[in-house]
Amino acid sequence: MKRHVIRSQDFTPEFLARIFDRADQFRRMMEHPAESKKLKKRLKGRLINVLFYEPSTRTMASFVDGAHHLGATVFCTADAGLTSSTVKGETFAHTIRMFNGYRPDVLVVRHKEEGRLAEGALLLNKIGSRTHLINAGDGPGQHPTQALLDVYTLHQQLGSVDGVKIMMGGDLLNGRTVRSLAYLLSKYKDVHITFAAPKQLQIGSDILRHLDEHCTEYTCVGEDFRNLLPAQHAVYWTRLQLERIVHEDIETQKKQREELARIQKDCFCIDAAEMALMRPDAILMHPLPINNEVREISLVAEDDPRCVIFLQAENGMYVRMALLDMLVNG
Amino acid sequence: MKRHVIRSQDFTPEFLARIFDRADQFRRMMEHPAESKKLKKRLKGRLINVLFYEPSTRTMASFVDGAHHLGATVFCTADAGLTSSTVKGETFAHTIRMFNGYRPDVLVVRHKEEGRLAEGALLLNKIGSRTHLINAGDGPGQHPTQALLDVYTLHQQLGSVDGVKIMMGGDLLNGRTVRSLAYLLSKYKDVHITFAAPKQLQIGSDILRHLDEHCTEYTCVGEDFRNLLPAQHAVYWTRLQLERIVHEDIETQKKQREELARIQKDCFCIDAAEMALMRPDAILMHPLPINNEVREISLVAEDDPRCVIFLQAENGMYVRMALLDMLVNG
Amino acid sequence: MKRHVIRSQDFTPEFLARIFDRADQFRRMMEHPAESKKLKKRLKGRLINVLFYEPSTRTMASFVDGAHHLGATVFCTADAGLTSSTVKGETFAHTIRMFNGYRPDVLVVRHKEEGRLAEGALLLNKIGSRTHLINAGDGPGQHPTQALLDVYTLHQQLGSVDGVKIMMGGDLLNGRTVRSLAYLLSKYKDVHITFAAPKQLQIGSDILRHLDEHCTEYTCVGEDFRNLLPAQHAVYWTRLQLERIVHEDIETQKKQREELARIQKDCFCIDAAEMALMRPDAILMHPLPINNEVREISLVAEDDPRCVIFLQAENGMYVRMALLDMLVNG
Repeated sequence: MKRHVIRSQDFTPEFLARIFDRADQFRRMMEHPAESKKLKKRLKGRLINVLFYEPSTRTMASFVDGAHHLGATVFCTADAGLTSSTVKGETFAHTIRMFNGYRPDVLVVRHKEEGRLAEGALLLNKIGSRTHLINAGDGPGQHPTQALLDVYTLHQQLGSVDGVKIMMGGDLLNGRTVRSLAYLLSKYKDVHITFAAPKQLQIGSDILRHLDEHCTEYTCVGEDFRNLLPAQHAVYWTRLQLERIVHEDIETQKKQREELARIQKDCFCIDAAEMALMRPDAILMHPLPINNEVREISLVAEDDPRCVIFLQAENGMYVRMALLDMLVNG
Repeated sequence: MKRHVIRSQDFTPEFLARIFDRADQFRRMMEHPAESKKLKKRLKGRLINVLFYEPSTRTMASFVDGAHHLGATVFCTADAGLTSSTVKGETFAHTIRMFNGYRPDVLVVRHKEEGRLAEGALLLNKIGSRTHLINAGDGPGQHPTQALLDVYTLHQQLGSVDGVKIMMGGDLLNGRTVRSLAYLLSKYKDVHITFAAPKQLQIGSDILRHLDEHCTEYTCVGEDFRNLLPAQHAVYWTRLQLERIVHEDIETQKKQREELARIQKDCFCIDAAEMALMRPDAILMHPLPINNEVREISLVAEDDPRCVIFLQAENGMYVRMALLDMLVNG
Repeated sequence: MKRHVIRSQDFTPEFLARIFDRADQFRRMMEHPAESKKLKKRLKGRLINVLFYEPSTRTMASFVDGAHHLGATVFCTADAGLTSSTVKGETFAHTIRMFNGYRPDVLVVRHKEEGRLAEGALLLNKIGSRTHLINAGDGPGQHPTQALLDVYTLHQQLGSVDGVKIMMGGDLLNGRTVRSLAYLLSKYKDVHITFAAPKQLQIGSDILRHLDEHCTEYTCVGEDFRNLLPAQHAVYWTRLQLERIVHEDIETQKKQREELARIQKDCFCIDAAEMALMRPDAILMHPLPINNEVREISLVAEDDPRCVIFLQAENGMYVRMALLDMLVNG
C-alpha cells in the first residue's frame, strides 16, 4: 500500500479487497451503539486536516463525520481558495509544506487544478514527511475515493465486480468520478463498460487507451444508448458539469451551457421509460449531487428500488473511514 | 416530546418546564470547574452536524460551544449555500438525506426558505432516520430555539411567564424571532402582548389569528407605543431586517430600506426617555445583533441595569445545551 | 503575565524565556508518540474559540492544530466578516461580549482594524470575564504571536537574541509582522536592526521612536542594502502587502500596486547574489506566504540551507501551543 492516495490506478486488487472488508466491518459496528463506541478508539489522538479549494458537501462531510466516528480530531477549512494565503499569492507546494509542519496524521485536499495533489505527494516524500496525503478531487483530474465508494457499492450490491456490465452516462468528459471509476474497473476481470454521452461530452481518449492497455472491453454510444440498457448490471449516471464549461465570452459560455443542458434534458436522462428497460436486478447509481433543473435522474427513477444513490453516498463515509484507518493503523 | 424541533408551537408546557430546569442546572454546573467536567460526559461520543445556509454568529457559536461543553463532537459548515453542492443544483431534500447517511445524532440547520425544515423532518421520519433535526431559523419563518431562550429569560428574570405583559417592537413583519416568541407565549396564561411597529412592519395576521385562537390578549400600536411602556414587565425590541427588504429595482430597494431605517431611527428606538418610562423592575430584551447604524437600543439604554441582552444571549447557549441533551438522552 | 495577549510590547523577558522553554519541550514531546499522547492532557476539556475576520491559513491552522495536539476542543470560524452578524451591523464589542457568554477558555481573534483587540481586552476586563483574548493580527497593527515565533526562531537558530544583527526588508510600512518583531527585539541587549525598503514602504516613525526610547540601534537603507548583508546574523524578508494599498480610484490603485511590485521585483528581492553576500552561519527568515508572482525570496534562495522559513512556520505552532498552555495552566 502506498503512503499517499492520489490516483485510483494505484490501488491493488488486494488493497481493494481489504478496504471493502473493513468498510463492511465499520458499517456493522456503526449499527450497534456498543460497537460504535469501540470504533472511537481507532483514531483516538490522531489529527486529520481537511483542506478544500473547491465547493463540496458530500466528500468533505463524509471525511469529517467518518473521522469523528473513528475518534479523530479534525481541522477543516471549506474555502481554502478564498480565506487562505492563496489570495496572497502562495503556491500550493508552500501550503502543503506548511501543513506538514503542523504534524497532522492525514491531510485530505481538494484542489482546482489537475496534478497538484501528485506534486504534493512527491514533495512530502522528498522532505521525509510522516503525513499521509489523500486526493479528494483535483479539478477535472481524479477523485480516487469516489471511485473506491463506487466500486465498493458494485461489490456490495452485485456480489462481485468481475464480469460486471456497466453503462456510464451523462458528462463523461468533465466528470472526474467517471474517469477514476474507469481506471479502477480496469483492474477487474471481464468488465464491460458502455460510455453513453453526447459527442461533445464523450469520455477522453486517455481513458480508452488505458482500458485498451488493460484489456477492458468498452463501447461508446450516443442517444441510442437505450438499446443497451437491458444488458447492464449497473447504470451509472452523472450530472452535466456546467461549472467546468468556461469560455472567455460570457454570452458564448451561457449559450454553450444552455445547449448542453438541453441535450442532456432531451436525450440523456434516466426516467421511467429507461428504468423499464433495465433488468429487475440491475442497480442505478449516481455520484450526486443531481441537478434539480436538469434532473438527469427523474424523481420517478429516484424512487425506484433499484436506485441506490443514497446508499452509495452512505458507502462514501464507510469507505473513507476504512481508508483513514488503513493509512494510520495499517 | 417530538423527535425533531421545527416550530415553537410544538413545545408543550411540560417540555418547557423541563428544559428550563435543565438549562438552570447546566448553568450552575458550568460555574464550577469540577461540575463542568461532569457535563462533558453527557454527549460524549455523540456527533452533531451544524449546517448553515445563512449568516449567523450567535446561533451557530452557541450550538457549537454548547455541544462542546457537553462533550460532543461537531462538524460545522458556516456557508453551506456557497461551498456546498447547492451551487451544483442539489435540492435540500437530497442534502438532508445524504447527511442522514453519515449518522449524526443531531442535525442543526439554518435555511433561507420558510418551510424547508418541516419538509426535512417529514423526510427523515419517512426513511426511519435516527437523526434529530433542529430548525436554527428558516428564512422569514421560525426560529424556535430563539423563542425558547427568550421565554427562558422571561421565566428566569420575572419568576414566571404567566401573567406577563410584554411589548414587542421594531420590525415585526420580517423578524422571525418575534413570530416564534408570540407562538410560544400563547401557551401561557394571562399573557398580554403589545405589538409596536410602523404600519409597514406590523405583525402578520397569521400570528394574530393564532393568538385569537389561543385566547391570548394583544394590542397593536404605532408611534404612540410610549404611552404603554409603563405597564410592561418586559420590552422586547428588534432590529430592522434590512436584508429581507428586497426589490428587483436596486434603486427602489435602496429607497425602501432608507425610508424604513429613517422611520425606525426617528420613532421606534429605545433610548433614555423610553427607559425612564419603564418600570424599575421591568426588563429590556433584544435578540441581537443590534444594528450600530440605526441603534434601535441606544448605548445609554444598553448600559441600563434593566437591559438583559447579553444575559439573554448567554441563555441561548444553556437552553440549546438542554435541548441537545434532552433530544439525545431524554 | 498579563491576562490577554494584545501587543508584543507587553511580553517581559522572563515570559519570553519561559515560553521558549515550553515550546522546546512541546516540540521534543511531539516527536515521540508516547510523549505526544501526554500532551493531549494539558488542555483536555478546554474550549478554544477562533474567530478570523481576515484571510489566513497559517496562523489559523497553527492555532487550531496546536490546540488539538494539546487536547483542547476548538470552534473556529474562518470568515467571520462574511458569515457573522457583522453583516447585520453588529459592533465588535458586542461580538466579543457575546462570545464571552459562551465561556471559551481562550478567544483567538484576527480583525481588520487596528486597535480593536485592545478594546476587546479592556471590555473583557471590565465585565470580569474569565476568557483570555489573543490578538492573531489586527489589520496593519500588530501580530504578537508572529513576533513570538520570529524571536523564538532567532533564539533557537542563533543560540541567543542578545547581540543579534538583523536586517528586515521588503514592505516595512504595511507588514505588521515587522512592526511586532521590532517591538519585541527592543527588549534584548545590543540588538542592531537594519531596515531595508523602498522609501514609500520604509518603517514607520512610531517604531523608530520606540527603538530610540529603548536604546536599540538601527539603520535605515534603500536599494543599497546589499553592502550591509555580510554583517547580518539574520535576514528577515517580507512580502509586499498589496492588499493594503488601497485607492478610491481603481486605475490609480492598480498603477500604485504595479509600481511597487516592480520596485520590489527589481531591487528588493533575495536571490543567489544576495545569499552569496550573507555569512555562512546567517539565517534567512520570512513570515510567509511568499508571493509567487513577485518571488521576494527566489526559488534558489529558498533551497539554500540557511533559509529557515518552513522551520519558522513550524515554530509558529509550538510557540502558540506554549502560549495557550501558559494562559490556561500558568
